[in-house]
Amino acid sequence: MQQRTTDQQATDVAHLRRALELAAQGPVADPNPRVGSIVTDAAGEVVGEGWHRGAGTAHAEVDALRQAGDRARGGTAYVTLEPCNHTGRTQPCSDALYAAGLARVVHAQSDPNPRAAGGAEVLRGKGVEVTGGLLADEAQALNRSWTHLVTTGRPWVTWKLAATLDGRSAAADGTSQWITGEAARADVHRLRAECGAILVGTGTALVDDPQLTARRPDGTLYPRQPIRVVMGERDLPATAKVLDDAAPTWHLRTRDPKAVLQALADAEVHRLWLEGGPTVAAAFLSAGLVDEVVAYVAPVLLGRGRQAVTDLGITTIDAALRLRPTDITLIGDDVRITADLHEGHEALEALEALEAAGAPMRTPTTDPTNTPEEH
Amino acid sequence: MQQRTTDQQATDVAHLRRALELAAQGPVADPNPRVGSIVTDAAGEVVGEGWHRGAGTAHAEVDALRQAGDRARGGTAYVTLEPCNHTGRTQPCSDALYAAGLARVVHAQSDPNPRAAGGAEVLRGKGVEVTGGLLADEAQALNRSWTHLVTTGRPWVTWKLAATLDGRSAAADGTSQWITGEAARADVHRLRAECGAILVGTGTALVDDPQLTARRPDGTLYPRQPIRVVMGERDLPATAKVLDDAAPTWHLRTRDPKAVLQALADAEVHRLWLEGGPTVAAAFLSAGLVDEVVAYVAPVLLGRGRQAVTDLGITTIDAALRLRPTDITLIGDDVRITADLHEGHEALEALEALEAAGAPMRTPTTDPTNTPEEH
Repeated sequence: MQQRTTDQQATDVAHLRRALELAAQGPVADPNPRVGSIVTDAAGEVVGEGWHRGAGTAHAEVDALRQAGDRARGGTAYVTLEPCNHTGRTQPCSDALYAAGLARVVHAQSDPNPRAAGGAEVLRGKGVEVTGGLLADEAQALNRSWTHLVTTGRPWVTWKLAATLDGRSAAADGTSQWITGEAARADVHRLRAECGAILVGTGTALVDDPQLTARRPDGTLYPRQPIRVVMGERDLPATAKVLDDAAPTWHLRTRDPKAVLQALADAEVHRLWLEGGPTVAAAFLSAGLVDEVVAYVAPVLLGRGRQAVTDLGITTIDAALRLRPTDITLIGDDVRITADLHEGHEALEALEALEAAGAPMRTPTTDPTNTPEEH
Repeated sequence: MQQRTTDQQATDVAHLRRALELAAQGPVADPNPRVGSIVTDAAGEVVGEGWHRGAGTAHAEVDALRQAGDRARGGTAYVTLEPCNHTGRTQPCSDALYAAGLARVVHAQSDPNPRAAGGAEVLRGKGVEVTGGLLADEAQALNRSWTHLVTTGRPWVTWKLAATLDGRSAAADGTSQWITGEAARADVHRLRAECGAILVGTGTALVDDPQLTARRPDGTLYPRQPIRVVMGERDLPATAKVLDDAAPTWHLRTRDPKAVLQALADAEVHRLWLEGGPTVAAAFLSAGLVDEVVAYVAPVLLGRGRQAVTDLGITTIDAALRLRPTDITLIGDDVRITADLHEGHEALEALEALEAAGAPMRTPTTDPTNTPEEH
């Protein structure tokens, strides 16, 4: 029996890994999570593959079941996220899986969304064998910001910072075009396109007059544009580039980062790209509302000029905000340093602890739902 | 004949590459360059290997000839640097090579030292076949700072900078222990040990009271200690750590970076490790006397605090000092960015141009000294 369990688990992992590859093809900035699915027939043959292509389209399981048709009966569905039990833009996936006559469902990440969770429980109640938690970390990493939104109620906030080696984001006369090179600027646009919204303060909108769109190096727009958010109480002139029709724009007349994040959460935006200036950056940082920093450090020295960030209320070294680097990449002549803030890190750890304590399990071989003979 | 030349060149390159490996075993902070040598007998068999172990010891060629003894007669000597023609601490190597009865001498970098150069010419005049310039770039890289000293008359200056992501080198209250992690601090000590001198201003010496030695992580001193140089007109208290007997210390009562570099050049120091503070760093940078920056960027945010460097007289982005990164390494949680200043880069290019124009050649197959049949 141990041997059968080990073999089955290896098969489960292989199918889930393929499902993760499929999931990664989904749109990263979509309000919905990226999900992939594989369906096998009763003999274990793959008869369907699917993934979610964004809000309003079929969920991954349904996409895979369409391919599988009747061959799904008695088979297994592999899904990177616990099947939803929620009637939203589509019918609950738990219903669709049950209706297809599947004997078993294997999922990775359990659904952290309280509105949608419970799919596994419903299926078990109807006699379907459910195994959860395999490759859960990888599945969660694929939907880090979406998971963050549904668990904390606010978007994952990435602060983008471009500065010289000596920490300047503009020269003494205010000029800042360009501190970083072309390749780094193209990288910023690529990452903007992965976010649901981009935010600046009215100060930046008035002084720099940026368009705030996500553009390819040839100047054309990426197909999906983030919402442009300008935060602050000052008026914007009708001629401001940020008000053109290249993308939707919100002017939020508030100085409260929490209010901004609430408005974005209400619109199901799970990743915000924060582009400063220094006052807006300091407001988010001081409030503990930055999850990640993407810093482009240019091999340039200026001596003086505008700081990348203003006072954070930190006066001594022991109170410094310490980050955890997750990636270092040379982009052209600039260095991109990606780092999590400890807040973000702790939130993820809390989430992991929550998941470990809840119904879905990290070690399926010792889980009762996975070894029914022990019941 | 072409075939013989090609085969011979492959052999020459292989022996020089081995000689470069030997050279790299020499002491990097020594006043003398690091040089390696291989001697083959008339049949092409390797009969001696040698390298220079520092000022006062045998030169690499002599070291290799000692091993070879009489077997060197009619053979070839491979040397990573043109044999010297200079009576200094030792006799000229050109004499030793001639006396050993070698038929041929192959060297990489030509001697950029006007006092020592001419060895190749002297040997040719005595009927020895001399080939130069093979692997010259690699040989020069091995003695970058020494080459810099003998061609420009001043040491290669490396400015070490430790700063937060937002460019602070201390918190608002002056505390700076520690911005970077343990691994980065150990790396600084390792690099200090590779320099002939370390420099700070009297300000840093008085406020931070550093010992300025090169220490291993366990606190013990590296065997070779750089000269500790304190620059500035203020007096130092006799209790200053920098005045202890762990290493020699110079207090140079000047604010002129040029005067400091002259004193170091007179002492044959070819690499200076500049540790700031901001005023001293700005003085060297403004005078165009920094060749390289080694920046430890810590994933930390402070918001305000001491700048890594003060005013450089740069007011607009087009006047920014732009560096060329040569290495990016993650050290612990910190990122070490090594970058050449354009001045240093241009100096190296000038040196390369000078070498290309002079007697030694980059393309030995087209050089008359290498293809005697074309004479």
